[in-house]
Amino acid sequence: MNLISIDDPGDPRAAAYLSIRERDLAGRQGRFVAEGKVVLEVLFSAARFEPESVLVLDKRLAGLTDTLHKAPPSMPVYVAPQSVMDEIAGFHIHRGILAVARRRHEDDAEALIASLPPRAVVPVLVGLSNHDNVGAIFRNAAAFGANAVLLDATCCDPLYRKAIRVSVGAALKVPFATVESAGSLVDLLDRHGFTQIALSPAGTTDIRDASPPHRLALYLGAEGPGLPDELLSRLQTVRIGMAPGFDSLNVAAASAIALHRFAN
Amino acid sequence: MNLISIDDPGDPRAAAYLSIRERDLAGRQGRFVAEGKVVLEVLFSAARFEPESVLVLDKRLAGLTDTLHKAPPSMPVYVAPQSVMDEIAGFHIHRGILAVARRRHEDDAEALIASLPPRAVVPVLVGLSNHDNVGAIFRNAAAFGANAVLLDATCCDPLYRKAIRVSVGAALKVPFATVESAGSLVDLLDRHGFTQIALSPAGTTDIRDASPPHRLALYLGAEGPGLPDELLSRLQTVRIGMAPGFDSLNVAAASAIALHRFAN
Repeated sequence: MNLISIDDPGDPRAAAYLSIRERDLAGRQGRFVAEGKVVLEVLFSAARFEPESVLVLDKRLAGLTDTLHKAPPSMPVYVAPQSVMDEIAGFHIHRGILAVARRRHEDDAEALIASLPPRAVVPVLVGLSNHDNVGAIFRNAAAFGANAVLLDATCCDPLYRKAIRVSVGAALKVPFATVESAGSLVDLLDRHGFTQIALSPAGTTDIRDASPPHRLALYLGAEGPGLPDELLSRLQTVRIGMAPGFDSLNVAAASAIALHRFAN
Repeated sequence: MNLISIDDPGDPRAAAYLSIRERDLAGRQGRFVAEGKVVLEVLFSAARFEPESVLVLDKRLAGLTDTLHKAPPSMPVYVAPQSVMDEIAGFHIHRGILAVARRRHEDDAEALIASLPPRAVVPVLVGLSNHDNVGAIFRNAAAFGANAVLLDATCCDPLYRKAIRVSVGAALKVPFATVESAGSLVDLLDRHGFTQIALSPAGTTDIRDASPPHRLALYLGAEGPGLPDELLSRLQTVRIGMAPGFDSLNVAAASAIALHRFAN
């Protein structure tokens, strides 16, 4: 391992870790930050993204050796005491390990769809601006073997630090692509033989009565506004039956039920 | 409505709203705080808990009239400008409405179980210390018509402000009781004719092959440690099948799948 001690919070080698939260908001120009042992294991194992370096708490290094051996051996591993690590990051890093990785040239939606196997499940997220929900849906997508995730331009970034954390790394594993609007996907997915189903509280078919198609695109909209009517009118609609008087389900919970139901 | 203007953050009538966050941690001696229009509508409509007062932002009052008319007419409605409201609470209250309500003498688990109908579903939470997860499970419980929730003493408080918020008010609607240990419930639920099923990644039966029983107690454990072996050995165990390589499901997502599957 390429271990490098950092004793000075101003050390330029650790500059990528400065003021983590402020730069979560400002963006990082082609990079993202991931945190925690389990997430970093997915980052290294899935190898979809190139890790540039790791910053690890000195007293946690021994316990993280197995994790770090999954990374490229030349990757710098910056080792710092808690006070230096917290001063660099700008808050207390209780997980003890952070990585900076490079974004990749984002997959083109058409190329991604064309690359999918004959049996495939693809959640399509529309207007999901909440990082917890997007992260949780990626986690469910990975758990139930979804092949890719498509997002419209009004969704939040799956590589935002909190979304990655909530996804337990799934956002670093499941391929995704962003499109300008979900409407533009309908013809494309249709040409590729996808059965397109919108999950909606007003759906015409109960999900218990819906058969898993060979190729499924599953549209999920934001709680509250839901999917746009214009989109619903072009798709099959499926509902998850609920109890009278409290028909309110979180979109990530709905995705878990639907992805489990339709998993290949 | 019993409208009372509050112009001074030191007004003793609004003392129950002072330093919200600090008192979330310290506890409130028989009271709890709920926030937001949707949650307060559940508080007032379900009427399981007695609201003592509401603190509402002056400019939001008009839009909240329908909500407030669901509360007892004598209940004080304190109306304050944003600066006074934020100074009382100790942080910016962007939801614009808060309520303080009285806890009730908590239901005894045995009495609660004895009161349940012939067909019933009861999630049993063991070791769930995360407010998001407990809140989300209450939301799923309400959505799928669970009749009550049982929690062991190591679970967090469902009436913690964040748990209520994540539950979208379900924690104020679905009856619950806390027991010292889940182990003590097994004989009790058995005597009341409950089929007792533990959800576990190592469960012997796939949930797709498990029939919904008439009376179900569904045990859910914390991510990571899961349910204690001692408990698993006394229960039927059911698993949710996942994709190889990423068999990681959030406990609230798992509860959504199981409660939907077993809903009456």
